[in-house]
Amino acid sequence: SKLAALFEHPLYKVPIPEVTDGDKLFVVNPMEKFSLRSSGSDEWVSNSKAEMVLPTGKTAYDTYPTWLKFHVGINRYELYPRQDPLMPALLKDLATLKIVSSVQKSGGTQLKLIMTFPNYGQALFKPMKQTRDQETPVDFFYFSDFERHNAEIAAFHLDRILDFRRIPPVSGRLVNITQEIRDITTDKKLAKTFFISPAGNVCFYGECSYYCSTEHALCGKPDQLEGSMAALLPDKTLAKRRSWRSPWRRSYHKSKKAEWELNPNYCAQVKETPPYNSGHRLLDLIDMAVLDFLMGNMDRHHYETFEKFGNDTFLLHLDNGRGFGTHSHDEMSILAPLQQCCRMKKSTYLRLRLLATEPYRLSDVLREALAA
Amino acid sequence: SKLAALFEHPLYKVPIPEVTDGDKLFVVNPMEKFSLRSSGSDEWVSNSKAEMVLPTGKTAYDTYPTWLKFHVGINRYELYPRQDPLMPALLKDLATLKIVSSVQKSGGTQLKLIMTFPNYGQALFKPMKQTRDQETPVDFFYFSDFERHNAEIAAFHLDRILDFRRIPPVSGRLVNITQEIRDITTDKKLAKTFFISPAGNVCFYGECSYYCSTEHALCGKPDQLEGSMAALLPDKTLAKRRSWRSPWRRSYHKSKKAEWELNPNYCAQVKETPPYNSGHRLLDLIDMAVLDFLMGNMDRHHYETFEKFGNDTFLLHLDNGRGFGTHSHDEMSILAPLQQCCRMKKSTYLRLRLLATEPYRLSDVLREALAA
Repeated sequence: SKLAALFEHPLYKVPIPEVTDGDKLFVVNPMEKFSLRSSGSDEWVSNSKAEMVLPTGKTAYDTYPTWLKFHVGINRYELYPRQDPLMPALLKDLATLKIVSSVQKSGGTQLKLIMTFPNYGQALFKPMKQTRDQETPVDFFYFSDFERHNAEIAAFHLDRILDFRRIPPVSGRLVNITQEIRDITTDKKLAKTFFISPAGNVCFYGECSYYCSTEHALCGKPDQLEGSMAALLPDKTLAKRRSWRSPWRRSYHKSKKAEWELNPNYCAQVKETPPYNSGHRLLDLIDMAVLDFLMGNMDRHHYETFEKFGNDTFLLHLDNGRGFGTHSHDEMSILAPLQQCCRMKKSTYLRLRLLATEPYRLSDVLREALAA
Repeated sequence: SKLAALFEHPLYKVPIPEVTDGDKLFVVNPMEKFSLRSSGSDEWVSNSKAEMVLPTGKTAYDTYPTWLKFHVGINRYELYPRQDPLMPALLKDLATLKIVSSVQKSGGTQLKLIMTFPNYGQALFKPMKQTRDQETPVDFFYFSDFERHNAEIAAFHLDRILDFRRIPPVSGRLVNITQEIRDITTDKKLAKTFFISPAGNVCFYGECSYYCSTEHALCGKPDQLEGSMAALLPDKTLAKRRSWRSPWRRSYHKSKKAEWELNPNYCAQVKETPPYNSGHRLLDLIDMAVLDFLMGNMDRHHYETFEKFGNDTFLLHLDNGRGFGTHSHDEMSILAPLQQCCRMKKSTYLRLRLLATEPYRLSDVLREALAA
């Protein structure tokens, strides 16, 4: 397969810096009995790299559920390793583990749910809101577009194919909204919005600031609803995150323009502003612009980092639901950071060139990744 | 043509009662100088049938604009006559006369505009809100469905083909929303909602209780927008109307049922309730159910009559935008009045039978009427 060949290509073997304990989000103390009730990250940090061997011959780490192994693997450079042996199990868990709890996630404009699995793993469920192949209407603004569950899935794979690994794993899943949401939710406000549609389908609309009404209800067939299931990152109490406003953020206004849209020398001032004036942060931002350009995402107003790693770390590419909205339009303005700063990581450039060649054509490898 | 043949068929020659002055909405006093400022219907009413001949050899009536001739022609039995010689001019005026004013019409849930022509005629403009052939989503309720401008047009023709003539004339029209709405409106609230979309189209959304937001904006291409133009009925100060709640009104609730849905003997009590206990009102209501069934309209919560004619008059079939929402589903419950009362006007029955025969097939004659 082209995808397997891509990941075997020398460009995908370029070494990643050695990860020391200081580069890890969590350093597991093998003496510490695993507990979900750990109240702060201090408990998780230890200088010991030794793994205590259990009577069964397994280490404590071996006994962790896959989602916890994913959390423990996060480091300064990436969310998960290249060719991660955990990835198939992680994606499968998201798609198949029993859902024991579903509640609405507050914040954000559109409805999403936090779902919990029996092994205490959690996923962010974003329901299908329109048919899979529906495009963003030409008269819609980037900030009023529907979010697409399949954009979340495709963005994860695209990011992985670009060798970034800055988007948490996402699977598609058919959810039974009666049994896996309505019947088990403790969220009374959510439960109240369930109804039976004229076609006899189970529907709900939740509570949110946009599109949460009968007219925009989400309906199963009769209760099966497709959606995306994204692995949750470690709780913010365990791993604080910092949110950064993108310097190339759009105006979020129907007619106002952002400064970068008016000033072609905008990059000059960004380059002098911390954190973009040192290290590789500006290049990281341009990586993000490349990713967003490829998926047509104009909605990258903020990005996040793990606080623990300071400024010397990768950028999290969360919330990609407004990508992949147009089949045949390239929104060049998304590349403004690249165009105005005129620089790019060499490794990204080389991979993009590779992905433009027939044996590794990006469309083909992405299609292959999504077929699974 | 099948349509022309239909209107020549003997069933469409069945005599209509002779219209006396008491059966007319307005009786024109030829001595009265025509004035739009007439403040009450009294001024318009006269027992004189004489027509004063002008020096040009024309009567005063001859000088009236078409819309006023339409108003003057309304009587107890119908809005306009069979094979009305005015109809082509009336439909053409709606489609082509210069628009000199456009303001939002208050009331109702969805956006509509009152447009005025240089000859003081007025039309109700309902803009296209979705592509012409989009169907009602299966999970939508009848009360949250979009209104379709082309349903208004088709309903007028269907009603005429059924020999009812209870729907005011409606034309389709391409409106330049910049020149024919934004630039000439005195409605500041409406003007404020205009904007330019990302695709460079002119859009607006107006103020209303449903679907009046950026996400549901109406957009031209770049400023041409299709819509329906319905002839307005005489102002209510000149011709009072009475609104009647339909006994077979639906519940307008997601799960509650109306009494007629639960009680198969519902008609027995309707038959004993005025005005359905005398005259032909119940049969008129069943005519309306037939019309609504043929267009799939579940939203007939009220109907109107002209107060002047008391209970012995036709029912106005206004507001048909929620008809024609499904291509291949017959909503049998719309026929509940027919099914529960088990009666129908003989003339309606005979015409329905005729319209089911190959030479006069309803689909064919409606298609032919709409082609114009």
